[in-house]
Amino acid sequence: MNRENIAQVGIIMGSKSDLPVMQDAIEVLKALGVSFEVSIVSAHRTPERMYEYAKSAATRGLKVIIAGAGGAAHLPGMVASITHLPVIGVPVKSSNSIDGWDSVLSILQMPNGIPVATVALNAAKNAGILAAQILATSSEELALAILAFKADLRAKVEETAEEVENMGF
Amino acid sequence: MNRENIAQVGIIMGSKSDLPVMQDAIEVLKALGVSFEVSIVSAHRTPERMYEYAKSAATRGLKVIIAGAGGAAHLPGMVASITHLPVIGVPVKSSNSIDGWDSVLSILQMPNGIPVATVALNAAKNAGILAAQILATSSEELALAILAFKADLRAKVEETAEEVENMGF
Amino acid sequence: MNRENIAQVGIIMGSKSDLPVMQDAIEVLKALGVSFEVSIVSAHRTPERMYEYAKSAATRGLKVIIAGAGGAAHLPGMVASITHLPVIGVPVKSSNSIDGWDSVLSILQMPNGIPVATVALNAAKNAGILAAQILATSSEELALAILAFKADLRAKVEETAEEVENMGF
Amino acid sequence: MNRENIAQVGIIMGSKSDLPVMQDAIEVLKALGVSFEVSIVSAHRTPERMYEYAKSAATRGLKVIIAGAGGAAHLPGMVASITHLPVIGVPVKSSNSIDGWDSVLSILQMPNGIPVATVALNAAKNAGILAAQILATSSEELALAILAFKADLRAKVEETAEEVENMGF
Amino acid sequence: MNRENIAQVGIIMGSKSDLPVMQDAIEVLKALGVSFEVSIVSAHRTPERMYEYAKSAATRGLKVIIAGAGGAAHLPGMVASITHLPVIGVPVKSSNSIDGWDSVLSILQMPNGIPVATVALNAAKNAGILAAQILATSSEELALAILAFKADLRAKVEETAEEVENMGF
Amino acid sequence: MNRENIAQVGIIMGSKSDLPVMQDAIEVLKALGVSFEVSIVSAHRTPERMYEYAKSAATRGLKVIIAGAGGAAHLPGMVASITHLPVIGVPVKSSNSIDGWDSVLSILQMPNGIPVATVALNAAKNAGILAAQILATSSEELALAILAFKADLRAKVEETAEEVENMGF
Amino acid sequence: MNRENIAQVGIIMGSKSDLPVMQDAIEVLKALGVSFEVSIVSAHRTPERMYEYAKSAATRGLKVIIAGAGGAAHLPGMVASITHLPVIGVPVKSSNSIDGWDSVLSILQMPNGIPVATVALNAAKNAGILAAQILATSSEELALAILAFKADLRAKVEETAEEVENMGF
Amino acid sequence: MNRENIAQVGIIMGSKSDLPVMQDAIEVLKALGVSFEVSIVSAHRTPERMYEYAKSAATRGLKVIIAGAGGAAHLPGMVASITHLPVIGVPVKSSNSIDGWDSVLSILQMPNGIPVATVALNAAKNAGILAAQILATSSEELALAILAFKADLRAKVEETAEEVENMGF
Repeated sequence: MNRENIAQVGIIMGSKSDLPVMQDAIEVLKALGVSFEVSIVSAHRTPERMYEYAKSAATRGLKVIIAGAGGAAHLPGMVASITHLPVIGVPVKSSNSIDGWDSVLSILQMPNGIPVATVALNAAKNAGILAAQILATSSEELALAILAFKADLRAKVEETAEEVENMGF
Repeated sequence: MNRENIAQVGIIMGSKSDLPVMQDAIEVLKALGVSFEVSIVSAHRTPERMYEYAKSAATRGLKVIIAGAGGAAHLPGMVASITHLPVIGVPVKSSNSIDGWDSVLSILQMPNGIPVATVALNAAKNAGILAAQILATSSEELALAILAFKADLRAKVEETAEEVENMGF
Repeated sequence: MNRENIAQVGIIMGSKSDLPVMQDAIEVLKALGVSFEVSIVSAHRTPERMYEYAKSAATRGLKVIIAGAGGAAHLPGMVASITHLPVIGVPVKSSNSIDGWDSVLSILQMPNGIPVATVALNAAKNAGILAAQILATSSEELALAILAFKADLRAKVEETAEEVENMGF
Repeated sequence: MNRENIAQVGIIMGSKSDLPVMQDAIEVLKALGVSFEVSIVSAHRTPERMYEYAKSAATRGLKVIIAGAGGAAHLPGMVASITHLPVIGVPVKSSNSIDGWDSVLSILQMPNGIPVATVALNAAKNAGILAAQILATSSEELALAILAFKADLRAKVEETAEEVENMGF
Repeated sequence: MNRENIAQVGIIMGSKSDLPVMQDAIEVLKALGVSFEVSIVSAHRTPERMYEYAKSAATRGLKVIIAGAGGAAHLPGMVASITHLPVIGVPVKSSNSIDGWDSVLSILQMPNGIPVATVALNAAKNAGILAAQILATSSEELALAILAFKADLRAKVEETAEEVENMGF
Repeated sequence: MNRENIAQVGIIMGSKSDLPVMQDAIEVLKALGVSFEVSIVSAHRTPERMYEYAKSAATRGLKVIIAGAGGAAHLPGMVASITHLPVIGVPVKSSNSIDGWDSVLSILQMPNGIPVATVALNAAKNAGILAAQILATSSEELALAILAFKADLRAKVEETAEEVENMGF
Repeated sequence: MNRENIAQVGIIMGSKSDLPVMQDAIEVLKALGVSFEVSIVSAHRTPERMYEYAKSAATRGLKVIIAGAGGAAHLPGMVASITHLPVIGVPVKSSNSIDGWDSVLSILQMPNGIPVATVALNAAKNAGILAAQILATSSEELALAILAFKADLRAKVEETAEEVENMGF
Repeated sequence: MNRENIAQVGIIMGSKSDLPVMQDAIEVLKALGVSFEVSIVSAHRTPERMYEYAKSAATRGLKVIIAGAGGAAHLPGMVASITHLPVIGVPVKSSNSIDGWDSVLSILQMPNGIPVATVALNAAKNAGILAAQILATSSEELALAILAFKADLRAKVEETAEEVENMGF
C-alpha cells in the first residue's frame, strides 16, 4: 500500500535554501518505497498558505508531515497546531542561526498539547526514516523494508570494522 | 489622542499563566495614559483565533501589538507574519522552559522579512514602554509623558544613591 | 481497535524517579483510550533487559515505544537501535542534570539511520499525544479522539480569554 | 511624508567593520522610501559623541534609531538610555564575539525602564523593516508600502514553491 | 598611604539591589585598610551622572573603580570608556538575568581599546582584593597586607584539612 | 608485561570517520609500548556487536577500553554498562554535532553506578595516556615510560620558552 | 591486596564545603573494600600543599587520586600535571558556579599530554567506582566486588520494575 | 619610570601556539612605553617552572603579570594563587576549545580570595592596556600616554564616521 501514487508523506520547508538539507528525507523515502510530495511553505511569509496546507493535509490523504526550518523555526509547530497528523520537525542550521540552537529549541520545546517529533539538527534522513516507521505501524511490507534498511546499516559497519581491524597499526 | 478609549495597544499572551509577567505591561501603559486591550491568544491551541486577531488588528484600530509567550514561543512571530503593525515580543520564562533560552531564541531569531521587536526575558514592563515610545513618534503629548517617566527613573536612582552614600560603611 | 486490552504503547523509563514526569503520558493515553504498558528499563543498569524489551517489542504487539530518561540519556536511542518501531524520547530533567541540556542532547542528536522522535524537556504528555497521533494514522476512531482533544484545548483557551478580557484592567 | 529629505531614521554602528551587516537596513529603508542618515558612533571609543548623537536625535527630527554593535554591545542600550525615541538594536556577530551570544545578550537583556527593540543576530534588514513599521503607525502611505513588501515576500515563496513542486523527485 | 582618608577606590553599582553582593568588596577593602567610597550610578537610568562620575574620578583622587551590574550590564564598560583608571567589573546575577550569562558577557567581552578587569559572577570580594593588588603595585605596606591575607587563606585551609583528616571515615 | 602481544587496550569508535581523531590514541599507546587492538563498534547500528564486544572484553584479556563517538554518543556509556573494565570516553566533534556539546554531555553525564572516564573533546591522545596511567598502577616499567613522557613534555616547553625569550621583541 | 590498611586512593577536595558531595566517593570505596585517605587541598589557597601532595602521592603508595572542585576548578588538572598517577576529576556545582558549566569545562578540557578522567557533575560516587575499576585491572578480588556491585544495581532496577508493572494504572 | 629597562610586566602563555594572539599585548605595551618580558610557562607541562616564575615575580621587579591560555586554562589562576601581584588573564580560543567557553570560564570563575583580572576572548591587546592602566596608578607619565592612546581611538572613529557620512547611500 505504501507503494501507491497518492502521497503519504508531505515534506515541506520554509525556504528553498533548506532543500539541500531536506533532500536526505526525499532520498530515504524513495529508497523505502514511501510516496511523498515536496513543497515550500513559509510560516512567516505565507501564513495563509501554511494554514491551508496543514488544514487540508489529512483530507488530501497525507498521513505524516515532515517540516524543516531554521532560526526561529515556527513551521513544524504551527503545522502541528492545525492538523492532527503526526508532524516531524527538522531543525535546519541556516546561515544566521546561532549555531543551530534557535532552530532546535523553537521546534523541540512545544507546549503541552501540541507535540512535534523532533529529530537532530539537519537530520532530514532520520525524519524520513521516522515517517516510514510511523507508516509501518500499519504496513507489514514497510516494516520489512525498514528491517532490511537496518540490516544494511549493520552490514556496512561490520564491513568497515573488518577493514579497520586489518589496517595493522 | 493617546488618552482616548479606543485601544492603541493589543496585549496578548499564550496562556493565562503568563498574566503575572504581562501585568507589568498593563501597568506601565496605564501610567503613561496609553489605551490598551488584553486577551489570551494561543498560536498552538487556537491558531484560527490568532489568525483573526492578527488579521483584524490594524482595521480595529490597534497601532502596536505586545505578545508574550514561553517555551517554543511562536505567538509573536506568527502575529508579525500576519499583520503589518509593529509586534513587540516578550519571552516568558515558563515552567518547563530551558532557563528561558527557548523563549528568547524562538522570538528573537526571526527570518529576514518579518521582524519581532524583542525585549528581555520577562521584561513586559519594557514592552509597554517600547509600545509607548512607538506611539510617541506621532504624539508630542506621549513623548512628554515618556520624558517624565525617564526623569522619574533618574530621580529614584539619585535618591537611593544619596541614601547609600550616607550609609557610612 | 485502540480500545482493546493488548498494549499498543510501551512506556518505559530509566528509573522509578522518572515516574512523576512520565505519569503525564499515562494519563493522556488513558484519556484517549489507547492501551499501554508501563515498566522500568535502565540502559545502563540493565542492558540485557533493555535489549530483550526492545527486541521483543514488535512481536509482543507494541506499535510505539515511549522512553523517558535523564542525564546522559541513552535509553531512547538504544531502544531505537534495536527495534524498528517508532521510539518517542522524553528528556527528563533529573536532579544532577545540567539544566536538562544533557538529557535533551543525548536523546535528540541521534546519528543518521536511527531516529528518536524527541519531545520537549519533561513533556511526557506530548509523548503520549504523539503516540496516539502515530496510531491514528491507521485508526479513524483514534483520529476523532485526537480532534476532540484538540477542540477541547481550543475551548479552554477561549474560556480563559473571555475571563481575561472581562477582568477590566 | 516619509519620502521627504529630512532623515526619519538614524542608522549608527560601533565600527565601520559593521557596515557590511548594517547595509541591509539601508537598502530596505531605501526600498520602502524612508529617509535615513548613516554614521559611526562608538559607545566605548567616542562616549561624548554618542551622548550628543542620542541627546540631539529627537530635536534634529529623527523618529527612530537603529544601532548595530558586536561583542559587549553597549551602543543600543546607552543610546536608549539618553533618548526617548524607540531604539532598535542589531546584534552583530563580530570577529571575536563568542558565536554572537555576547552581542545578543548585551543588547537584549536591558533592565526595566529602558527597552531596546532587539532583532535577530545580524538581522539589519529586519531592523529597517521594523523602523518602517514604527513610522507607519502614523503614515498610511508607508503602511501600504509595507503591505506591498509583505505581498512580495509571499509571491516569491509561492514562486519557488511552484518551482520545487515541479522538480519531479 | 593607603590608610589615609581620601578614597582610593570608588565602588559603584547599577542599583541598590546589587548592594548585598557588592558588600563583599566593601568588607575586604576595610580589612586590607584601603580607603573607598560607595555610590549608586546607573548607566541606563542616570547616564549623565555616570558620565560625570567617570570623568571626574581621576581628578577627585580615585585610583581604581569597581563597578557591579547585572543583566545587560553596561556600567563597567561605559565607565572604562570615559576614564583612564583601571575599572574592575563585577557581573551580578540579578533576578531576571539568564543565569548570569548576560551579566558576564556584557562586562567581559569589551572591544579592543577599552578593557574591563572582569571577576567571577557575584565575586565582589575578588574585586576588592584585585583593587588592593593594583594599589599595592606602588605600596609596600599594602603588599604586605595582601601577603598576610593570603597567608590567612592558607592557614584556614590547613586547619580544615587537619579537621577532615581526623574525621575517621 | 605491557610490551607483550596480547592487547591490553581496546580502542573502538562508532564510525570509521572517527579514525582521524582516534589515531592519536593509537600513536601514544605505541610510543608508550602498550599493546592495543582497534575496531569499529556502533552502539546504534550494531547493538549486538557492541554487546558482544563489551561482554567478552575482560575474558579476552583487555584491561581498559577507549571508546570514541560523536553526537548523541552512547557507545562509551553502553560499553561501560556491560563490562566492569574502566572505560575511557572520547567525545568526537562530528560533522552535525552542535559544536561538540552533544558528544561531551552524552558521554560525561552518566548516572550514578556506571562511570565513564571522559576526556576533552577530540582528546584521543589523552585517552591513550590515561589508559597507560591505569595500566601503570600495576606496572613499574610503564610508570617509568609515563614519567619519561612527562619529562619530554616539560623539556619541549622549556625549549620553546628559551626560543621565545630570545626573540627580542 | 585492596583490603589492606595503606591507602590506595587519595580523595582530595578544594574546600570542606565540597565534602557533602565527595562523601559519596568515600562510601562506595568503603562498600567495595578499597582503602583510601581524605583531605582538603586547595590549588588556589594552598598551592605548595597541593604540589607536595601530588609529588609525594605515588611514593606514599597511592595508586589513584580523586579530586573534586567547583568553579574555575584547577585542582584535578594541576594534580595530574605533577603526578603520573591516574587522576579522576569530580566537577562540583558550588554556590557561585554558573550552573556547573565552569566546573565541568575547567576539569574536562585538559590539553593534550595531561588527562583528567572526568565524571559527571557532582558524581563523586562514580569517581569512587572508577577508582575501584582502575585498581581492579590488577586485582581479581576487587573485580569480583565490582561485578557484585553491578549485579546489585541490576537487581534493584528489576525490583522497582516489578513494582511499577504491578501498579495497575 | 615606566620607560626604564627592567621589565614591569611579565607576559606568559601556556604554549608557543598562543603567541599570535598574545603578540597584541606586546605591541600595545611597546607603543605605551611599558617595559616587559615574554616567556612560555605551562601550568600543566611545567608546573615547577610555573611555581618558580610566579614565586619570584615580585622580587624580580615585575609589577603585573599577563597570562594567556586556552582550553582548561589554569595558568592565570595558578600564577595568581602563588604571587600577590595583579594577574591579568587572557582566554585564548585554541584549536580544540569548545568555542572558547572553556578558556573563558576556567580563567574567570576563580574562587573568592584569588582574583584574576579577566579580559575578553583573545583580547591580549586589552590585557596590555589594562597592565598599563594599573602601572599608571602610580605614574603620571604613563597616565598621559594612556590618555593620548584613548584620544587616538576617538580620533580614528571620528575619521571613519566622516568617511561613512560622506558615502552617499
